Amino acid sequence: MEFIENGSILTPRGFSAGSAACGLKSGPETPDIALIVGEDKLSAAGVFTKNLFAAPPVLWCRAILPTDSLRAIAVNSGNANACNGQRGIKDTERMADIVAGLAGCRPVQVALASTGIIGRPLPLCKVEAGLRESYVSLSTDIRAARLAEKAIMTTDTRQKACAVSIRHGDVEAFIGGMAKGSGMIAPDMATMLAFITTDMSADAATLNDILSSCTKNTFNNINVDGDTSTNDSVFLAASGDSGLSLDNAAVRDRFCEALFALMRNLAIQIVSDGEGATKQIEIRACGCASQPDARLVAGSIADSLLVKCAINGEDPNWGRIICAAGYSGAGFAPDRVSLRLGDTLVVEDGCPTGKDASREMKSRMVKIEIDLGAGDEEATFWTCDISKRYVDINAEYTT
Amino acid sequence: MEFIENGSILTPRGFSAGSAACGLKSGPETPDIALIVGEDKLSAAGVFTKNLFAAPPVLWCRAILPTDSLRAIAVNSGNANACNGQRGIKDTERMADIVAGLAGCRPVQVALASTGIIGRPLPLCKVEAGLRESYVSLSTDIRAARLAEKAIMTTDTRQKACAVSIRHGDVEAFIGGMAKGSGMIAPDMATMLAFITTDMSADAATLNDILSSCTKNTFNNINVDGDTSTNDSVFLAASGDSGLSLDNAAVRDRFCEALFALMRNLAIQIVSDGEGATKQIEIRACGCASQPDARLVAGSIADSLLVKCAINGEDPNWGRIICAAGYSGAGFAPDRVSLRLGDTLVVEDGCPTGKDASREMKSRMVKIEIDLGAGDEEATFWTCDISKRYVDINAEYTT
Repeated sequence: MEFIENGSILTPRGFSAGSAACGLKSGPETPDIALIVGEDKLSAAGVFTKNLFAAPPVLWCRAILPTDSLRAIAVNSGNANACNGQRGIKDTERMADIVAGLAGCRPVQVALASTGIIGRPLPLCKVEAGLRESYVSLSTDIRAARLAEKAIMTTDTRQKACAVSIRHGDVEAFIGGMAKGSGMIAPDMATMLAFITTDMSADAATLNDILSSCTKNTFNNINVDGDTSTNDSVFLAASGDSGLSLDNAAVRDRFCEALFALMRNLAIQIVSDGEGATKQIEIRACGCASQPDARLVAGSIADSLLVKCAINGEDPNWGRIICAAGYSGAGFAPDRVSLRLGDTLVVEDGCPTGKDASREMKSRMVKIEIDLGAGDEEATFWTCDISKRYVDINAEYTT
Repeated sequence: MEFIENGSILTPRGFSAGSAACGLKSGPETPDIALIVGEDKLSAAGVFTKNLFAAPPVLWCRAILPTDSLRAIAVNSGNANACNGQRGIKDTERMADIVAGLAGCRPVQVALASTGIIGRPLPLCKVEAGLRESYVSLSTDIRAARLAEKAIMTTDTRQKACAVSIRHGDVEAFIGGMAKGSGMIAPDMATMLAFITTDMSADAATLNDILSSCTKNTFNNINVDGDTSTNDSVFLAASGDSGLSLDNAAVRDRFCEALFALMRNLAIQIVSDGEGATKQIEIRACGCASQPDARLVAGSIADSLLVKCAINGEDPNWGRIICAAGYSGAGFAPDRVSLRLGDTLVVEDGCPTGKDASREMKSRMVKIEIDLGAGDEEATFWTCDISKRYVDINAEYTT
């Protein structure tokens, strides 16, 4: 498995992308709608938010996926089309109709995603014009992928893309992906949007299993602010153009490993571009009695506003980390806990070592390792600091 | 039941208070240690943090309370004496020894509380000098109460005190209290310090039952930042000096009602002085299928960083409130949910009404009412906004 330089959703063969600026986001030059289209039918699966107020595009995708005959994925930013009642549901159906008309397929062959402000009706005229323009612009050129990456951004400051290659004998196949963050990020399934393509072949049920399993320790282990959104979705679509099939067990293993690496890479890109973030934080909880305990501890630290503010100020305030582990709900003996900030052991068997970890806090990537001394299970979460800029961004989002 | 103007822990008879500045907090003029002493033996109970890293003073109090023979409560700020290993435990025992020596009682008749930075050894020489000075300064004068209120403050900007009176026939009795916040506040038992006195008489077991029950819908329903601290404790001590006894059922009912009102008042004082807070937020979840559901929904909204930032910016971004209800874990049908910001109905049966709630966001107290349309249960939580000042305070707490 190798990472590809300048990889994108168009690195795998059998896909084209198009986008347009239809006025959903401020600025007429800002792309805000995108299409990913298969040359042929695609096998596809998705995982979706568990929020009860799941938006109509999420409800739509849950109904049509997994499928072995997907033709297109349409996505808009600037408007989440969430909490819009019956109108929201009709607007989503209409989006699928429009794309189906353009692509010459049935509406159920079109997956949809929306992201942006909740509770504003979707301006359907703009969306229709944008979808038509996106369709006209469809291309397999990398520039089309880069524009699509821009089109899905909301408060993201950077595009997020990645691709990997897998070899089996003489055959090379690819997985490519793009994602958007960057607020309302909390670990309970796919709290963001991600679109992953591959030119391997697989049935939809297999893709579904693999995608769910890889989501668990990648996108579900990131946290910006502890909020799980109404719209977030991860899609995986396979064209089969490489000729490599997941029916082969060895290929399948390699695919799983590569997909996991790609999703982990995108997940970390999301937290490092968290709203207002200045630092990236990796939290490893080890020595835990069970997997749920490891996730509780790493997740609790990743969700602690006090920890994130301390790291923003480069303050080695490890008491807050210990404290967040203590209220996580995991079971352990406090006097067996050790804690490292970077390479510095600050707590050993529940006691402070007195070592100064100030230097560890200066780096752009702060590593926290907590060992509960209670077993062999572990989990790793990724998050970012919370800065005054986060408050600025979120105090005036809709006004 | 009536609130008393300028009430304090010394409004009830049978108590005196003393305090000193012993150098645990910066500035030699800042009181940082306090004693509350009973003229006679006190019945007393406490409720404590559920954090696994509960500090030694919490472990100490769990062991000695409830008791019918408490003589004193000693509390220091500036140092939490948490996560200090065996030394922390010995220092706590030593604090109890010192107070017992001064008050002429046994160490198990002394309750203790510490608040401040985690993981720094307690400077016991300073503490001993401070306790001696506090003992010498013991007084029943209101000024002694006011100094004690200051002595327990950490990042609090205001003292928090309250007292109520109860009448039964010709007899008047009192309950008084003081509390400190103001970061690391989350609803899972007593995430702060509070000291409540009364001159009614009751056995310790009765006080314990009533205190636990009142905590549930007062101090457990507040949230500043979602962090549950290692030290937080609520104490209730009764002198019996009024002659009124809780053995009388009618008196007991009146006492419960009055204690609840006092604790609710102190709880709201804590959130309105939350670190960096500019606004107070009251969240009522009604129409819920069960009490746990009502607490999940109100608690989830109270803990949403995005909701708190929106309110900081006076942005009527109700989508975030709906979203936080959706991921709370409570069960309900999204299309039956209604939401009010102040008096403005913004969502009805899951659909936006289109009404502008901008004006509701201008007030210092923002009221949110969400009706799930799923039953008759309800819960009310209190929280505050999160401002850039919160980040400032917490980025540089120990440095």
